[in-house]
Amino acid sequence: MILGDTIVAPATPFGHSGVAVTRISGPKSFPIINQLSKKRGFTNRLATVCSIIDSDGNTIDKCVVTVYKKPGSYTGEDVVEISSHGSPTTVQYIISSVCAAGARTAEAGEFTKRAFLNGKLDLVQVEAVASLIMSKSIENTRQQQKILQGTLSLSINNVRTNIISLLGRLEHQMDIDEEDWPSEPPSWLVNGVDAIYSKVRHFKNTSPLGRLLNRGATVVIAGPPNVGKSTLLNALAESSRAIVNSAPGTTRDTIEAELLMRGVPVLFVDTAGLRQPEDEIEKEGVRRTKSLLKRADLILSLTDRTKSKNLLNSAAPALSVVNKSDLRVNKTNNASVIHISAKTGEGIPLLKRKISQQLGINKISTDAPYLSTSRQHVAMVLCSDAIQRSQSLIKKHHLDIEIIAFELREALNAVDALLGKTSPDDILNNVFSSFCVGK
Amino acid sequence: MILGDTIVAPATPFGHSGVAVTRISGPKSFPIINQLSKKRGFTNRLATVCSIIDSDGNTIDKCVVTVYKKPGSYTGEDVVEISSHGSPTTVQYIISSVCAAGARTAEAGEFTKRAFLNGKLDLVQVEAVASLIMSKSIENTRQQQKILQGTLSLSINNVRTNIISLLGRLEHQMDIDEEDWPSEPPSWLVNGVDAIYSKVRHFKNTSPLGRLLNRGATVVIAGPPNVGKSTLLNALAESSRAIVNSAPGTTRDTIEAELLMRGVPVLFVDTAGLRQPEDEIEKEGVRRTKSLLKRADLILSLTDRTKSKNLLNSAAPALSVVNKSDLRVNKTNNASVIHISAKTGEGIPLLKRKISQQLGINKISTDAPYLSTSRQHVAMVLCSDAIQRSQSLIKKHHLDIEIIAFELREALNAVDALLGKTSPDDILNNVFSSFCVGK
Repeated sequence: MILGDTIVAPATPFGHSGVAVTRISGPKSFPIINQLSKKRGFTNRLATVCSIIDSDGNTIDKCVVTVYKKPGSYTGEDVVEISSHGSPTTVQYIISSVCAAGARTAEAGEFTKRAFLNGKLDLVQVEAVASLIMSKSIENTRQQQKILQGTLSLSINNVRTNIISLLGRLEHQMDIDEEDWPSEPPSWLVNGVDAIYSKVRHFKNTSPLGRLLNRGATVVIAGPPNVGKSTLLNALAESSRAIVNSAPGTTRDTIEAELLMRGVPVLFVDTAGLRQPEDEIEKEGVRRTKSLLKRADLILSLTDRTKSKNLLNSAAPALSVVNKSDLRVNKTNNASVIHISAKTGEGIPLLKRKISQQLGINKISTDAPYLSTSRQHVAMVLCSDAIQRSQSLIKKHHLDIEIIAFELREALNAVDALLGKTSPDDILNNVFSSFCVGK
Repeated sequence: MILGDTIVAPATPFGHSGVAVTRISGPKSFPIINQLSKKRGFTNRLATVCSIIDSDGNTIDKCVVTVYKKPGSYTGEDVVEISSHGSPTTVQYIISSVCAAGARTAEAGEFTKRAFLNGKLDLVQVEAVASLIMSKSIENTRQQQKILQGTLSLSINNVRTNIISLLGRLEHQMDIDEEDWPSEPPSWLVNGVDAIYSKVRHFKNTSPLGRLLNRGATVVIAGPPNVGKSTLLNALAESSRAIVNSAPGTTRDTIEAELLMRGVPVLFVDTAGLRQPEDEIEKEGVRRTKSLLKRADLILSLTDRTKSKNLLNSAAPALSVVNKSDLRVNKTNNASVIHISAKTGEGIPLLKRKISQQLGINKISTDAPYLSTSRQHVAMVLCSDAIQRSQSLIKKHHLDIEIIAFELREALNAVDALLGKTSPDDILNNVFSSFCVGK
């Protein structure tokens, strides 16, 4: 990426509104705003009312301009924010004029990429920015805010420091003659590796919860036709005060409703009835349902007791739910089966508690920062595996210091990649491409 | 409206973006931001980074806060702008916390209404704000920007001053004994009324052009089935580099494309073929087409010369267009008929020039400010009528000074209503209700 050029983009969504903010970042930001406003010497951070004028001398809009001198800006570069009327035409007009004056339009995530490259944020914080913008619940907003403020990075940096310090001591030992090595592993090494492993394992274990809070879960309601799957979906949606989204799915076969369960966006999907397909159209419906089941975090396997044939054949965990409890007196005493009446609402609160338990929602606490993305999880698994290998060598009294040091260096590399200290370009591009333009 | 309370609303559109701005206005704005930021003494207009904290002590977001002390703000009241991450969840969280601290959510247009009530803008400028936000072309943006900056208000205020000055002189005359009145109208009265009328008529005549630029026009393509109406719509759309919007209409019977013609958004509507309906469904299609024809500013009456029966029966101006000129050699020499080939594009540029002429687009100049809304036009017509009545009395040497003064006062009232000096509440509410929330 060329950092020498100046970028511009709308920082607010497309639409008609009171205010729209256009952001410029780079070395030409200040010359450009001087040219467009026919004004010089904006005071740093002072909201200044001025007209923005096009190259023909026409006033585009009377705006509030705020300049942020480097390095005290979001990107770490000279930044200009132009607050205009919230009209897409005006924003486009301003951006064209800024480009005519020497900037280019920014790519998705390019402002944040510059903040990262200028050391304002590490890669974990960068991902928190993206998660914060897309957050669907206050609980996740708080979580991502903590990560953005650096709580998670601080803990990970502590692990990094511990690894470096242990590596230093090991490398010092390598300079000593091998014959002088003790046959028993020294306690500083055993304890040091154990302490690191314990922290790393803790982080690795947070990622399912972090991912749950940040990305949510998919619960598929499956079962034979006419057992009340749609009624159950409605009952779940109606019993919740926090309906995020309720709309027909991409196909006519599925209906979806997204509910917030303790801050976790849970997408409930009602599927086409599962039965032996009788024609091509039904075959397609069943094929889609099976593909959904593969992506499910949890399946509600619904029957009404009159039908028993289970067509489910899926790796995802499932809860057995028996509907239409209002129609029958006798119930099985099988504790693993949940009896409900989707029609009367009986058993729905219990079902929701079971769903929450099964997904792990009840284990979430927003006090501690969690790893929130797959990338973070993968890096922490690499780190954990390397530490574990070194631990196992030590436990077997196989004291080949060079191999132990090699494993610790592997772990260090994984942590550095996690924080973005040594991330390859394709990983970086992947992270930033998920951003919106203007951030 | 109670001006004593404090209002809050998002000032930027709903969506995921880099930045979202939340605006607070009213006497409690500063105490509220002090409470939410645990900070005191924000410097006027200085963009200040601080955390916004909820009532439980959780950080909602790290924001940039800018305060504007009254009267130097948009509304004329104490205003706070909170620039947060562009997440709807975060914005909702901030607004809830601001409301918990003593504000209420704003109604549509309420910030601008306060600016109006505090004398920051007159009603003509208020309407320019709304038009600016909804503007579809740079030409209209420039026009509305000029009006917002007060060029139109200044000219109208000049007319107002002229009327008041003439009224003053007339009222002075009324104190003099009636018998001392001259039988000939004095030249200062004749010239004064003539000068005012000339200006008022000028303004009144600008409103069709202003409305055209601001609201656009609808051109309906009508004619028998299979004469190439859809092909013509496509040919018009493809020949234009400024397609605003091209989407199926609300019914399956109409297809629309909006093009910018010299800054005027022209909506072209392709209709169901007009013919004697054969069944109920066709009857409904023809009924819809006829209703569209009533709303049209211009009708393109399309035939392919093989069909001649004209079912059009509409008050709107129409251009006769003969399609499929590529298929025939002989053309009529009737100058009022435009020959085109929608298929090859032949004649399309001529047709567009004729459309532009017929709608009046070629008469638009963005140098002069135009009346842009129906409300402004109606007020100016009332004013013009009253001036004309006084003019006619004077010309007939019917010098009843009290009646002439009465008419001039009517004209003054119309100008005052135009500027919003004496507008009734229902008119005001009507103007502001067309705004978005947060402006």
